[in-house]
Parts: sequence; structure tokens; C-alpha cells
Amino acid sequence: MKLESLLKPQRIAVIGASENRGKVGHEIFANLVKGGFEGELVPVNYKADTILGYKCYPSIRDYPQEVDLCVISIPTPLVMEAVKDSLAAGARSICVITAGFKETGPEGAAVEEKLASLCDAAGVRLLGPNCLGLINSHHKMNATFGSHMPQEGGISVISQSGALCTAILDWAAGRHMGLAKMISMGNKADLSETDFLKALGDDPETRVIAGYLESINDGNSFMKAAQATAQKKPVAILKVGVTDAGGKAASSHTGSLAGADIAYGAAFKRSGIIRADSFEELFDYATALDMQPLPRGRRVAIITNAGGPGIMAADAAELAGLVVQPLEGAAAAALREKLPVAASVANPIDVLGDADPQRYVDAVEAAQNDDSVDAVIVILTPQAMTNPTETARAIIACAGGRKPVLASFMGGADVMPGRDELVAAGLPDYPSPERAVAALKAMVTYSEWLQRPPRVLTRFAVNRRRVERIVKRNQRAGTLQLSELESKEILTAYGFQVPIGRLATTAAEALAAAERTGYPVAMKIASPDIIHKSDIGGVKLNLNTPEEIVDAFDLMMLRIPRQVPEAVINGVYLEAMCRAGREVILGMTRDPQFGPMLMFGLGGIFVEVMKDVTFHIAPITAAEAMQMLESTKSFALLKGVRGQSSVDLDAIAIALQRISQLVTDFPQIVEMDINPYMVGEVGNDSVAADAVIKLRADEVKS
Amino acid sequence: MKLESLLKPQRIAVIGASENRGKVGHEIFANLVKGGFEGELVPVNYKADTILGYKCYPSIRDYPQEVDLCVISIPTPLVMEAVKDSLAAGARSICVITAGFKETGPEGAAVEEKLASLCDAAGVRLLGPNCLGLINSHHKMNATFGSHMPQEGGISVISQSGALCTAILDWAAGRHMGLAKMISMGNKADLSETDFLKALGDDPETRVIAGYLESINDGNSFMKAAQATAQKKPVAILKVGVTDAGGKAASSHTGSLAGADIAYGAAFKRSGIIRADSFEELFDYATALDMQPLPRGRRVAIITNAGGPGIMAADAAELAGLVVQPLEGAAAAALREKLPVAASVANPIDVLGDADPQRYVDAVEAAQNDDSVDAVIVILTPQAMTNPTETARAIIACAGGRKPVLASFMGGADVMPGRDELVAAGLPDYPSPERAVAALKAMVTYSEWLQRPPRVLTRFAVNRRRVERIVKRNQRAGTLQLSELESKEILTAYGFQVPIGRLATTAAEALAAAERTGYPVAMKIASPDIIHKSDIGGVKLNLNTPEEIVDAFDLMMLRIPRQVPEAVINGVYLEAMCRAGREVILGMTRDPQFGPMLMFGLGGIFVEVMKDVTFHIAPITAAEAMQMLESTKSFALLKGVRGQSSVDLDAIAIALQRISQLVTDFPQIVEMDINPYMVGEVGNDSVAADAVIKLRADEVKS
Repeated sequence: MKLESLLKPQRIAVIGASENRGKVGHEIFANLVKGGFEGELVPVNYKADTILGYKCYPSIRDYPQEVDLCVISIPTPLVMEAVKDSLAAGARSICVITAGFKETGPEGAAVEEKLASLCDAAGVRLLGPNCLGLINSHHKMNATFGSHMPQEGGISVISQSGALCTAILDWAAGRHMGLAKMISMGNKADLSETDFLKALGDDPETRVIAGYLESINDGNSFMKAAQATAQKKPVAILKVGVTDAGGKAASSHTGSLAGADIAYGAAFKRSGIIRADSFEELFDYATALDMQPLPRGRRVAIITNAGGPGIMAADAAELAGLVVQPLEGAAAAALREKLPVAASVANPIDVLGDADPQRYVDAVEAAQNDDSVDAVIVILTPQAMTNPTETARAIIACAGGRKPVLASFMGGADVMPGRDELVAAGLPDYPSPERAVAALKAMVTYSEWLQRPPRVLTRFAVNRRRVERIVKRNQRAGTLQLSELESKEILTAYGFQVPIGRLATTAAEALAAAERTGYPVAMKIASPDIIHKSDIGGVKLNLNTPEEIVDAFDLMMLRIPRQVPEAVINGVYLEAMCRAGREVILGMTRDPQFGPMLMFGLGGIFVEVMKDVTFHIAPITAAEAMQMLESTKSFALLKGVRGQSSVDLDAIAIALQRISQLVTDFPQIVEMDINPYMVGEVGNDSVAADAVIKLRADEVKS
Repeated sequence: MKLESLLKPQRIAVIGASENRGKVGHEIFANLVKGGFEGELVPVNYKADTILGYKCYPSIRDYPQEVDLCVISIPTPLVMEAVKDSLAAGARSICVITAGFKETGPEGAAVEEKLASLCDAAGVRLLGPNCLGLINSHHKMNATFGSHMPQEGGISVISQSGALCTAILDWAAGRHMGLAKMISMGNKADLSETDFLKALGDDPETRVIAGYLESINDGNSFMKAAQATAQKKPVAILKVGVTDAGGKAASSHTGSLAGADIAYGAAFKRSGIIRADSFEELFDYATALDMQPLPRGRRVAIITNAGGPGIMAADAAELAGLVVQPLEGAAAAALREKLPVAASVANPIDVLGDADPQRYVDAVEAAQNDDSVDAVIVILTPQAMTNPTETARAIIACAGGRKPVLASFMGGADVMPGRDELVAAGLPDYPSPERAVAALKAMVTYSEWLQRPPRVLTRFAVNRRRVERIVKRNQRAGTLQLSELESKEILTAYGFQVPIGRLATTAAEALAAAERTGYPVAMKIASPDIIHKSDIGGVKLNLNTPEEIVDAFDLMMLRIPRQVPEAVINGVYLEAMCRAGREVILGMTRDPQFGPMLMFGLGGIFVEVMKDVTFHIAPITAAEAMQMLESTKSFALLKGVRGQSSVDLDAIAIALQRISQLVTDFPQIVEMDINPYMVGEVGNDSVAADAVIKLRADEVKS
């Protein structure tokens, strides 16, 4: 087992253990004793001889054997010494409960870093500081100062908030829910979500991982660990701080549209993590995933003894993209014979207000045996003839199939014993039909992720050397914002078509260039300092005559220096107008946590006003590129509406993959937009009509 | 009191009362007895002499006095006779519990209608049939067969589902929640939501109305009653069946975009009804509205003893449009002195994990006394030093101010006693911060509705007679789909500008018309049978030369008859091209329940692909028209992005009000689109470039 000395220690020392109730060190030691820990417990406190009957040591150095885990709960100024002592005494893991480190400011952060590096040098892993501790219920270890020891269960919790751990423990106690492990990560000086995802992924007692996160230590290794773990068991995470996106300075559209929350969303999706948007959702999802098998598809049968709640469930299911269709198979036909005439065997299946347990059993069995059903939701309202507890037992007895069964027994007093029996028997129960549906939807999403086709990356033949030269030259010169010309050179090297274009510094040169290019032409200001050219009148399209060329040139030279006097102007750039087509925007911004995020959207207002864009973390496959297209609202426009024909969707998907390859090959590229990328119908060339590429400052050997 | 004989009867007869447990008639009579009803109870059953010690009558006719309420619970075939007997015996109200009427098909519906008309003729109101009955807790009347009598409370429930009533009663019992009245409306043969909104609006014991609806009997009177009631007290409604929009046949864009659910949404918004999207939301909202004063604004202070849940609440609040800003007033400054140094007095206010009750009190009082705060959310996690029950009591003692205070005590076992005390003391408590925020948002929305400015309708000077003539002429001729020409005539009469246009039947006429109009011109096919002209190549824009005119004419005459051979073609219609501007779509469709629904959206793809439209029920004020504009995502485009200037927003708002007046004046108009309505910058004329109007078949005196 990974992290065995921490998660499944045989000998635990508690430095700061105490006889005094109310002291954290007392609570932890008492919890270990009360929890029935079967290994050796070593209280350490220089003021006591014994604690709770255990022989107490003045220092961990005085204990003659090596311990697996040292839990430290003493005043902040003493922690450093205690860690050193623990390391000297050969401790294999350390958990620092004490607060007062990074969360208090730079000084605390420095001490915390020192603690971590001391442990690291000794090859010892550190949990905390500033945490509640950890629990392994199957190992009878409660090394926290929380007041409940959960019963054994399949859900393991990792949390960046100790307070939330206490709330979860209290909630679990109230609902008689079991937990496997509970780990309060605190300041994550060393051990973090990534380590625990790996460890719990391999832990046979953990069936589901539920996480609460405020930040992620290292995006890349997190994604790798998450994906490897999600392949083995479901991981549901509540990530808070979603509205803190703030005003990120960005020179590309892509950069300005990609908030931190979008990056988390893209990373979670890529890694197969089930994202919960609230505390209730996190445990609603985890419970279902822990207790029931995954559905193979989206088709849900709803069984109810009342019309209204059945409609509620059907509404919620359809809004969530699940399928509520009449049962088609023989089992449903047979059900017709068993139910009263007034009952409905459509979907929802209405077993009527006077339904006895047997009617529920008939319906659940029919739904389970019917090939047109992937999952079952059973709703009960406590009506005059209803026996919630007997019905719960009957459903439990018949619901052990390969399809998930979720219940919603609505009400409070009368239904509660039945609800408790359901949960105890591994049948998740929700107070409202909508929450049962949301949990099922989470299962469906995860199941579909597991069934996704293998990811095959296309490698295109490109001229990597040429890009290397351009990148190095510019980095050396400190020109991080590449000119349109050089941006397009890079794109050309990666297989993009760009319009034929020429630089002109005088009106006469512009005229000559236009003649060579062929009318109509586009004229754009050529300046390394101007990124959004059209904002300042630096783009004139569809110039048709020599007169228009000269007018446009003179006006740009007159007006633009007035507006941006500091800009170096190299002249204008003339290129052939692109043939009519759709304008789309393709881009990339490098998220500080998760790396290159590709963006796709329809151009112009769709990006700027409607924010109708999608993101995906590179590298990207052909199928994922197509999904990006399909998940914009404006996708219908690309496919063609009202008699228009479709644009070349594959051309866009390939362009996204080429960008993916480019930004994977060159981590020096931190932001880029191709805006617009002009796409015609199949058979026409697609063209990168304008492009912006930004490099990072340092030069990196690639 | 309205409906007094039903809601607060002095003498109740139960026809079908029985000694046999399990019989519905027994349960009802027993519930009345057990509930401590203080009026007179009259069991009616020809098989018994006494029931539960009460003298029993073979028929209601044998009882010597008139009763206020007859509750009927006997087999379906006997109900008609029992109703007749009740009427003959002078009953003032009747409640039919028995099922087997409209819900079983046309036969049952006919009998139900007969029941209703018998009662109506006698001036007696009928509740049901097919219902659970009704409860008035303050009157100690439980005339249902549900198994719980709720304690007294401020929330009254009306429900179209009896099963949901039982679930609500059971839930209320489990959480020790009080209810005022609970009315199961059943099939609503006579009494419906509208009647009960009126009655409960005037009921001094009802502070909040919570409704569950599957349908509405009469949209117009519902809206009137709802609005009048919402003016007095909050009304929260869960309307299910939201995804049943289905494929409504519509000849206008407006019609095809306006599903039934959108109409309900618009009607609820107009009437000040708080819409709940799930069963839990309904009672989350009702509880807050019942227990706490309304907030005067959107600024919420969040108080917490743990960082994570504080972030959860702040995330949810900001996503909901509430304002989470640091407290600005003197009270907050004073709080700084009272809290420990490590505590945060920003927002969320973090009173730290070891917070005692006093620290919570200090924070709640500061937030209540601070002018920069409109509402307070208090979060507690059960940490080592936390005393949830004492903290609950302390908060209760200090929270009686003019600002709403909502709590979220997270957890299960340890916090439950505190949660129960909060609720008992009128302080709503939610299991997660997100649900507390959602409840507060509902309060804010209602408070803002109450504070809305008075609705002043503008009446424009119009040529109503001219429209009357066009409408009558076409209705008489059976031409329900008006031609573009006549549609524009109607618009002109209501003050719209339309492009100057001419009809041409030959190429030569088209040429002559184009010369008179002045190039460039638009050519459109003129046919009463073709609505979406551009779909079949029936629109050519920007024709610049005589040659283009002749080509366009010849091609239309060649191609369109091939595509729609059945269409009568009157020629083509030539009009001056509109000056460049934004295309918007204005429309109206008449919802079968709620009447004329106005629509606004940006034209073209914004309507067709993005579905970025808003609806509002006519008649509409200037402020409401402007709200319609502002609530589209594409509003920024109208205001001008990237250096473009704003279009004439008032012109659009006025156009919507003119449509509002037109469709209010002429109920014969069932659908209309102005698509596109061309809007330029302020100072330019806005023009209805194309229009479709559809009339209903019957001719109605207006």
C-alpha cells in the first residue's frame, strides 16, 4: 500500500498527548484509544507519566522503537523541534495538526517550508500542518480531534478544510453512513491531493473518492494521478472559489476568456473527475457511486406511487439529458398483467397511490429485466395505504441487479425508518426526486467517460526547425509579441494555409503590392506593438481600386500614430481577401496549473459578446477536437442552417490538432489566437487570416 | 373570510365515515376527531349507529341542521347521489375525496362536470374530486386521510397532488415545521389555485403560500389573483411538467420559440410569483419567507467559523447575483476590536474554528447594524471547540432585527439539536450554505418585485379603424395568414415605419418599380402562401442594376413555382433597401393560458441558432420593454461593442410597446413577427423591413 506508514501505521506516537480534556492533543489521543486502534500507541509529553493509562515519554527520542506515524499537536513554536526529534527517532510519517504556518503570512510560510524540506531530506512524508488529522475506519484509527469515528464504508474523503471534515463526520454519524478514510490535508506542505489520489486509487477499501479542494498544488501531476485513479474508481470533487476568476491580464482573446474556473473544469473533464457544484451534490454523488453499479446508458425508468413526483423526476431527467422513454421489452409487457388497470406502465411507471410492496417489486423487476432500461429511480410518497418500511425492504430484496437503483422516499417522519434501511442496505435514498436524478446523471457521465474510445493523437509532419529559429530569434531579441508576419510563418511551418501577403512602407509600394496580389485586397497595419488592429482602424477589408488603396494607406498613417504614438509602425501588410466563409477563432492560453488550453469559438460577436467558446487541455485527439466544435451553441451555424451548407468541420478539427501539436512542441508559446480562421465548404482551402502569438520571456532549450 | 364554510367550517359532515380502520372514510373522520376539531362532527353512513362515539346518520338529509362542509368519501358510483343529498340538505361547501372521475377518461370527466354544475347551480363551492382533503391547523381541522396533523405555522400549501400533500405533512412532522392550511385540490372541477390564492391572500394566519401545480385552470384570472396576492404576501410555486413543450405547430418564429414553460415563467414573473424548480427549493424558499423579514437589497454578509464553507457561500451568492463586499460601516470597524487578530472581518467574516457563541453574536450584531449589509448568512461547522446548541441560542437571541438572518449549521448528529432550536425559534436553517443562499436569492427577487416602480402603460395615438377594416376583411375572406403588404399596413397604422414598396407582376413592372424606388432595392416574392420567403430563394437583397432586377425576377418566377407548386404567386414586391443597422426580431404569440406574449431578440442566427430571446406578457410598460432588451445575452451588441455606437434602444422599446397595444386592441391577432426590424443609431429611422401577421379563424366583435 502506498503511504502505508501514514494510512495504516502499526505504531503511532502523539506528541502533545494530554490528560486535559479540551486540549487538542488529548482529543486525538483519546480518539485513538476510543476508536479501538489495535497497534501500539505512544503518548509523548514531558509533563506526564501516563496518559489514559498508556506510558508517556518525555520526548519521542526516549521511546526505544521506531514509530510509523508521529502526530504532532503542540504550540506552534515547538513544532520544529518536535519534527526534528521525530525524524531523529526514525518516524516514517509525520502529521502536524498544529496551525500557525503558511496561513499566517510569509514568516509562517518560511517555517513551513523548512519543515517540509527537513522531512523531504529524511525521506519522510508530511501531512499538514494546520489539519484535523486522518482516519482509517477499517484500521480502527481515528487520529483526528473530530468527535465522531465513522463506521466502515466505501467512501474516502480528502479535504483541504478541516472544518468541513468535522461537518462530514457529523453528517455521516447522523445518517449512519460509513467512510473508509478521511484525510484532512491542511496546508499541504508536502502531501497533497495528488499523493492521496494515487494512494486511495490503490486502496482496496476505498470504492469512491470524494474531495474538497480550494487549490491544487501541481496541475499536471494532479491530472495524471486523477486520470489514472478515475480509471479505477470514481473521483468526485467539489472545487470552491469558482467566482474568483478576476481580471487576468491577457493579450489574446483566448487568454481573456479562460478564467481559472474554466481551466479546472477542463482539467476535471479530461481526467474523468466528477465535478460537484455544492456540498450536498458531493455526497449525493459519492453515495450513489459507492453503493450502486454504473449504468451502461442514459435510459432511466421512473417508478412512482404518485403522479406529481413522477413528473418532477421526468422533468429533471430530461433537463439533465437522460432519456425517459416507455419501456419496450417483454418485461414491461408482462408488468402490464401484474399491475391494476388504472396503473400506468409507460414511463414514469405509476403503481398508484395504494401500491403495496409487491407492486413496487413487480415494477422494479420489470425495469431491471427490460433491455430498454439502464437505470431505475424509485419514488415513494407516504400515502394512506403506503408502508414505507416494508416497501423499502421489498425493494432492497429485489434490487441487487446489474443496473443502478436509486430511491427517493419523500417525507420526514413516517418514511425515515424506511430511508435508513435503504441506506443501510446500500440503496441510496434522496429526499427529493431531483436529487436522485442528479446523482444518476453523475453516474452516467462517469460511465460514459470510462467507455470513451482510446485517445489516439495524430502527429502531423511539420517544420519544427523553422519554428525553433523564429522562437529563439525573438526570445533573444526580447520580442515576445510576435508580428503577424512571423506568427503566420510559424503557422505555415505547422501546415496552416495563410493568405499571400506583402509588406509595404509607402503608398506606392502598397499599390504595387496590391497589383501583384490581385484585387480585392485587405490592408492591415504592421506593428509589433498593436495586437487588436481593428480596434484602432488598422484593418481595411475589400479594397477594390488603386484609389482605395492609397486612401486607406494615407489614413492609417495619419490616424494610427495619433492614437498609439508609442507604437513602432513597420508599414502596412497587404493580402488577398479570403474567399467568403465562416470566421472562427482558434486559440491557446497556458493555464498556470494545467498547461495549454485550446479554445474554439465562432468568430467576432460569438466570442466577444456571447462568450460561446469551448476549452480543452492539449494535447487533443481528433474526436476531442470535434467535441469542442459540437459543444458550442453556435455549432448549428457551422453545420449550416436554413439551406446553407456545412463548412469543412474536419478542417477546423485538424487545425485545432495542429495548434495542439505546436503548443505541445513549444512550451515557449504562452498565448495565441488565430482570429479569424476562415473556413469554407468542404473542398475549399481554410485560411488563417490573422494570427497573434506570444512567447514567454525566458529562453528554454526545447 | 373568503371560502369560510370550506376553510373554517363550524359543522362538518363526513359522508362515508366508517368504524373500519383502513377505510378512507374512517381515516378522515378519525383525523377530525383526533385533531381536536371544536365544531360539530356529523358522520354519515347507513350501516352504523355511531362512529367513534358520534351519532351517525343514514343520510345527510336526516341530519336536522345545515352543515358548512360535507366531506364525501364513498365509492365513485354513489358520489353523484351524495352530492345531490348534500345540496338538498343545505351544505354550504362540498369536498369530494373519492377518485374515479376526469382522471379516468371522458366518461368520468362528464360525471365530474355534472357534479360541478350541480354545485354551481346551488351556489355551493366544490373541492376535488380525487383529493386528499384539507387542513386548517389554527382551526384544529384535519379533514384529510393523511397521517399527520401539522402544528400551527405560517405556510399554507395548495397542491394539485394529494400524494405530495402526504409527503409534505410527513416532512413537516419530521422537522417540527408548522403549516397554516393545506389544501389538496385534486381534479379542480370547481375550486382551483385562483380561488385559493384569493382566499389565502386574505387569510390572516397565512404568511406565505406554497403551491404545487401541474396545470392552471385559467391563465388570466390566475395572473390577476396571483399578482393581487403577491402584493400582500409571498407566493412560491413549483410548476412541474416543464419539458413537455413538445412540437407546437407555429407559423412565426415567436410561436415556435415560445414553449408552455416559457409562458409559465413569464406569467409567474409578471405576477410576482417566486418560482421554485424543485420540491426542496419550494420549502427552502417558503421557510425563509415565512420566518424572516425581507431584505431591502442584495448585499449579504456571510459569517462562518471555517474558510471553506464561507467560500462555498460566497461562490453561490455571486453566481446568484447577490453582492458579497467587505462591510463598510462603523459597526464592522467595531467588530475588528472584538474579534481575535487572526479573524477576518472582510466578507465572509471568519470568526475562526474555535469561535464561541459570543463571537458569533458580535459578528451577527455588527452585520445587522451595518448599513452596507442587507442580509446575513451564518454558517457553523461542528469543530472541536464548537457548541452548536449554545451558538444557536445566542444567534436566536440577537437575530430579531429588520434584516433577514439565515443559517447553515453543517453536519448531522451534533448540530441537529441546534438546528431544531433555530427552526423552532423562526430562524431558517439549511443543511448547506448553497441552499441558504438560494433561499436568500428568492427573498431578494420578491423584495425587488414589491419595490418595482408603478406600471404605467403608454397609449400611442394609432389608426385603430384601419386595422379593424383589414382584420375584418381578411377574417371574412378566410385569409388568416396576412400578406406582407397587409401586415405592413397594420404596422403603419400603429405608427411603424416600413420601407416604401411596390408590387410588380412582370419584369417590366419590376424595372419600373425599381426606378421609382431608387437603387439599391430588395425584391421579395409576393405570395400569401409563403411565409419564410428566404428559405426558398424568395428574397434578393441589394439589387443595384436593371439587369440584376430582371435576372432576379425571372429566376424567382422560374424556381419558386417548382418548389412550392401549390402557392398562389401575386408577383414580387420591391422596396428600398434599409439603411445599414442592426436586425432585431419583434414578435408576439398568444399563449392559450396567459394570452399575448411579446418576444424580443437579435435577428437571424441569434434567434434561430442561439435562441437568445426574451418573452414578456402584454401589455408592457416602457421599463419592462427595456428590461426585455437588457435580459438578452446579445444586449451588448445593441449597446455597441468595440467602438461601434449604440443603436436606438428606445426605438426598440417603443416598437415593443406599440406591438403590445396592437395585440391588446386586437385579440384576433394570434401570432406576429417583425423580422427584421432594422434599427440604426439614435436619430435614424427604425424600419419594419418584413412582417408576418396571423389572425384567428372566428370573427370577434372588438
